[in-house]
Amino acid sequence: MHVIDLRSDTVTLPTEEMRKAMAEAEVGDDQSREDPTVNKLEELAAEIIGKEAALFVPSGVMGNLCAMLVHCERGQEVIMGDQSHILWYESGSGAALGGLVYRSVHNGRFGELNPSEVEETIRPERLGFPRTGLVCLENTHNRCGGTVLNLQQIEGIVDVAHRHNVPVHMDGARIFNAAIYLGVPAKELAKPVDSIEFCLSKGLSAPVGSIVAGSEGFVREARRVRKLLGGAMRQSGVIAAAGIVALEKMIDRLHEDHVNARKIAEGIVDLDGIRLDLETVQTNIVAFDLVSPDWTPPKLISELESRGLRISSYGGRKMRIVTHYGISDDEYDQAIKIFRDVLTGTYVSYPQH
Amino acid sequence: MHVIDLRSDTVTLPTEEMRKAMAEAEVGDDQSREDPTVNKLEELAAEIIGKEAALFVPSGVMGNLCAMLVHCERGQEVIMGDQSHILWYESGSGAALGGLVYRSVHNGRFGELNPSEVEETIRPERLGFPRTGLVCLENTHNRCGGTVLNLQQIEGIVDVAHRHNVPVHMDGARIFNAAIYLGVPAKELAKPVDSIEFCLSKGLSAPVGSIVAGSEGFVREARRVRKLLGGAMRQSGVIAAAGIVALEKMIDRLHEDHVNARKIAEGIVDLDGIRLDLETVQTNIVAFDLVSPDWTPPKLISELESRGLRISSYGGRKMRIVTHYGISDDEYDQAIKIFRDVLTGTYVSYPQH
Amino acid sequence: MHVIDLRSDTVTLPTEEMRKAMAEAEVGDDQSREDPTVNKLEELAAEIIGKEAALFVPSGVMGNLCAMLVHCERGQEVIMGDQSHILWYESGSGAALGGLVYRSVHNGRFGELNPSEVEETIRPERLGFPRTGLVCLENTHNRCGGTVLNLQQIEGIVDVAHRHNVPVHMDGARIFNAAIYLGVPAKELAKPVDSIEFCLSKGLSAPVGSIVAGSEGFVREARRVRKLLGGAMRQSGVIAAAGIVALEKMIDRLHEDHVNARKIAEGIVDLDGIRLDLETVQTNIVAFDLVSPDWTPPKLISELESRGLRISSYGGRKMRIVTHYGISDDEYDQAIKIFRDVLTGTYVSYPQH
Amino acid sequence: MHVIDLRSDTVTLPTEEMRKAMAEAEVGDDQSREDPTVNKLEELAAEIIGKEAALFVPSGVMGNLCAMLVHCERGQEVIMGDQSHILWYESGSGAALGGLVYRSVHNGRFGELNPSEVEETIRPERLGFPRTGLVCLENTHNRCGGTVLNLQQIEGIVDVAHRHNVPVHMDGARIFNAAIYLGVPAKELAKPVDSIEFCLSKGLSAPVGSIVAGSEGFVREARRVRKLLGGAMRQSGVIAAAGIVALEKMIDRLHEDHVNARKIAEGIVDLDGIRLDLETVQTNIVAFDLVSPDWTPPKLISELESRGLRISSYGGRKMRIVTHYGISDDEYDQAIKIFRDVLTGTYVSYPQH
Repeated sequence: MHVIDLRSDTVTLPTEEMRKAMAEAEVGDDQSREDPTVNKLEELAAEIIGKEAALFVPSGVMGNLCAMLVHCERGQEVIMGDQSHILWYESGSGAALGGLVYRSVHNGRFGELNPSEVEETIRPERLGFPRTGLVCLENTHNRCGGTVLNLQQIEGIVDVAHRHNVPVHMDGARIFNAAIYLGVPAKELAKPVDSIEFCLSKGLSAPVGSIVAGSEGFVREARRVRKLLGGAMRQSGVIAAAGIVALEKMIDRLHEDHVNARKIAEGIVDLDGIRLDLETVQTNIVAFDLVSPDWTPPKLISELESRGLRISSYGGRKMRIVTHYGISDDEYDQAIKIFRDVLTGTYVSYPQH
Repeated sequence: MHVIDLRSDTVTLPTEEMRKAMAEAEVGDDQSREDPTVNKLEELAAEIIGKEAALFVPSGVMGNLCAMLVHCERGQEVIMGDQSHILWYESGSGAALGGLVYRSVHNGRFGELNPSEVEETIRPERLGFPRTGLVCLENTHNRCGGTVLNLQQIEGIVDVAHRHNVPVHMDGARIFNAAIYLGVPAKELAKPVDSIEFCLSKGLSAPVGSIVAGSEGFVREARRVRKLLGGAMRQSGVIAAAGIVALEKMIDRLHEDHVNARKIAEGIVDLDGIRLDLETVQTNIVAFDLVSPDWTPPKLISELESRGLRISSYGGRKMRIVTHYGISDDEYDQAIKIFRDVLTGTYVSYPQH
Repeated sequence: MHVIDLRSDTVTLPTEEMRKAMAEAEVGDDQSREDPTVNKLEELAAEIIGKEAALFVPSGVMGNLCAMLVHCERGQEVIMGDQSHILWYESGSGAALGGLVYRSVHNGRFGELNPSEVEETIRPERLGFPRTGLVCLENTHNRCGGTVLNLQQIEGIVDVAHRHNVPVHMDGARIFNAAIYLGVPAKELAKPVDSIEFCLSKGLSAPVGSIVAGSEGFVREARRVRKLLGGAMRQSGVIAAAGIVALEKMIDRLHEDHVNARKIAEGIVDLDGIRLDLETVQTNIVAFDLVSPDWTPPKLISELESRGLRISSYGGRKMRIVTHYGISDDEYDQAIKIFRDVLTGTYVSYPQH
Repeated sequence: MHVIDLRSDTVTLPTEEMRKAMAEAEVGDDQSREDPTVNKLEELAAEIIGKEAALFVPSGVMGNLCAMLVHCERGQEVIMGDQSHILWYESGSGAALGGLVYRSVHNGRFGELNPSEVEETIRPERLGFPRTGLVCLENTHNRCGGTVLNLQQIEGIVDVAHRHNVPVHMDGARIFNAAIYLGVPAKELAKPVDSIEFCLSKGLSAPVGSIVAGSEGFVREARRVRKLLGGAMRQSGVIAAAGIVALEKMIDRLHEDHVNARKIAEGIVDLDGIRLDLETVQTNIVAFDLVSPDWTPPKLISELESRGLRISSYGGRKMRIVTHYGISDDEYDQAIKIFRDVLTGTYVSYPQH
């Protein structure tokens, strides 16, 4: 049976153009900075995101971790949203490996932080207080449903943080989705923050890799941290080549994913068993709560899977549908139909032949 | 000018009996377990708190830290209240030194945690999730105003945690205040939890030291962690001697501090410039918010100090008055008068001659 | 000018067959274990190295780090050779990120450890002693000149360690060079140890990646650590595909590198300015000390480079030549000639036109 | 049976004068810097050791740990002697808690380090190299037999380290023994180094506590680290009072311990079963190897104990006798006799009645 996989945009496969680029890439040992394709990707990424320098890392987790470890010394406090990806899904890596104190503040409906709360949370100098080392933003905001922070919201937090000499990092795994939504270049959203991580995989469809970017000095230290973490690779130009295609060819098409997410959200919002806030469907994610007492997330996931549709769970009763490259209009229509049928009980589960 | 110091019960001075005990204590090298006074204190403490074994440590911070490092491996998550002392005032030590991920849940009005929220916060096994290693309770609860967790509240959390094989530690720096308030032996409150820390200084007036207690195996490892942290001392019987007096003579008198805190709270609750929740005044702490726009905490503290009264701030506009040993009834009356006069403007600040 | 690059076997470029495999690889999201190519590589690697399971990681550093973090809790001591790659070239990652105590013992002339010294270094239980958590071997041994530990040497250390319930990890970045030298399957050398890391890049010429292998339980935890470090990737089948080619096609040809290293060593051993121990030239590395007072390592490296030959330094006056795939017999002959000419002063350095 | 305890000078008991000082000490809450006795001790200690400021800590381990954590960021390398107390007996605390990479260099016969070896060990900037953060000296040197580093030896290392912008910390647990031996004020020995730790317990006989001293800025940060570790205490003036007596009254008498150590060493050096280097007997420690195959350290310790003499083991076959306050000339004579009798078999072990 053909399966429509809407669990995540991380399931996207490399395009033919990417595969070709990978096969033909000129490569060298990147640990000596001798891989021309990696160098080209890093320059291109820095330019697109509007930072002095950029570093290619194997994952978004490592990009965020590099930023935390460069910005913060042992024992410093990192302020982040209580719904943030770093807090929820990244193994507590900054704390586990770097001795950082995780401190959460409230994420608003659209993933935004409250500048006053952030300011009150930044520590004054006092015996027994850790020093605040970093504030992290997330844009788009995964657990809040792919919601977008606009420039004003970003600047509001950065102003507060910088007034207290605290740097700001943006987990911009899907920053281009935010930029497309707002109709601004991504570099405008990155401008206020001290560092940013974004993914070449996910919506941009590269098979492997993320970028962390910032000042020359920041990236110099991030390169050391990447080596420390075991993230320094050799002829990584073979994967960087796909990243170049991702940045050159795949950004503009993200708007299709947004249209499709909207279509799905509108196609299921009326169902009784779920609670879905249409206003949060801004990019390629449809988040909803499974409120029906008849369903548990594993049961729903399994039932949908048996009908040919894959969706995922955030943990708890919070569920997620993600649109992405490689799914046709027909498939999206079919996904809506399967979802509706299952939720409304039109289809019953029975053995497949 | 005589100053009435109600900043904290940590300012209590050792009693004459303690000083005598310290001067006469039989001592030895505690790192070889040869200090008979330390051994006696540890046995006494274990008995009073109802645990198999106990360890003498230089501070409450170290007691809590030993517990976290014994219970949790690198990278595990520690669930604690968002108003907890461990989160606010202990330098993030478990994260900074032990690679623990701090995770906060809501503290209720009386410092209690919500069992459902704790259960939802305990992590299932999933790639990218840190494992939950510990839940921390605090009793009495400092930032909530010295409020008390009763046995039912404690058991509610312990049940949830143990069901998921997660141990529970109690920061019981002022556990005897809780016991006095509830009219039960402290060991009843400690029984459900896997480990507990309590202070011999603070209300019990010993000059130095705290106890961390639990099973034999727990304390064996805590002894190693204490050494690791540099908290293993030599002839520490000289201070343990005061701790024995604290446990034998000073617990019962804590109820006076509660009466005095109540008196102060009732003596100032009507003032416009503050917001004080009388129901939270259960033990020896009077917490209130400074709501008057005419006052900042530093200004109030300084004005009161100039009139002979010292109080302290929790950080932000949250203030604290703590009753303790060595303050007379007259002084408490005078404290109320000074506080009222300053808040209502009867006294104006002018240069002191 | 054409340059003969003998700095390291990490400069090897992917073969045509690898590039083709990468371009055609069937891939999926490896974080859900859905990349069939990664799965195939991990199964193949486990089989070749004779362990229950294997994990694909972006680098040898991460493979060793995963092993250290799985085997050891915070504060445990790791015994390693004083010339080991982990101690010298891997950023102290186990200590920096995992709170491990690095403890060095003497590396013999061939990189071997002395079982008696290892046994004396393993800690008994005593207050103030860290617990010994791991012994690390290295095979072939990089800084000792690519020297080989035979089965007896490996077993000698493993016996001692296991007698004290301490696991043993082997940094086998170049384990297949050792196996070729000894004429045994690599799995025989890996059999005694609890875990092993080996590289697909280096002599095997894959562009990116290493393997860490051990028991099912070990690999399950290593997978979690890889995620923690940010080493979990998405469609990493694109690079795993090259790793499969490396394991299937590139192992047997390593003997050529050994022959060529021997040829180089014999071709330069008589030179006055260097000290080269021919007995240590067992695999693809020629290590020597630059003893001539007329040369510093940077000067020699620069002079050779200007003549078309690249070699590298271990740090200090210890130098290294590494043979590898993609260098022709003629080039090796030319390399010897350049080296001799430069060292003996036949060529003088002058501005290049 | 009366036991002569020469295991360590850590078994010294507080003098009557110390007990009186403790009983009468004026105290306050040291965490607010309001304990006048602690303040006085810290000022006195800073003056005696010739540093801008000093901090009272519960143990020598914590003093050294504070220094390491203040001087070094996460992941930096600490160079120390391979026989150093920090490496052997302090739980690997800097690595375990602070992410520091321990790196050992050779300790000479008298505990000295070789400046050339230290210089070669200091890392240049290179990807994959941890940065060198600190060099640690030890004076007197415990495992080398209480041997003394003179000013020239200290300066030799400090010159090398400072040339590379690396600070130097001295573990001067017994610095006053070194000063007495050399006939110079301790402050002269401390002058070249950036920080120093010394103990008030051990030969100076205070029951609890050590000092860590350095610049104002260093001590400001060390105070924060002490709080982080749980080493900040409350009315610690009760123990600081004994420390003041230790510094004012107990330093000059250390020479007696040296005379007695010499007497013991000369009284046993001729025995066949041990190997004792008389030249290393410079202060109050007599170190020797138990070379007789007839004895194991536990057997010797137990046999001596049964005759009324306690000595200790460094681990392995290395043994230690330490002279200290409170042992009479007669007891030392008797100790020699017991030791000779046991080693030469004059006494045989038989059941005690």
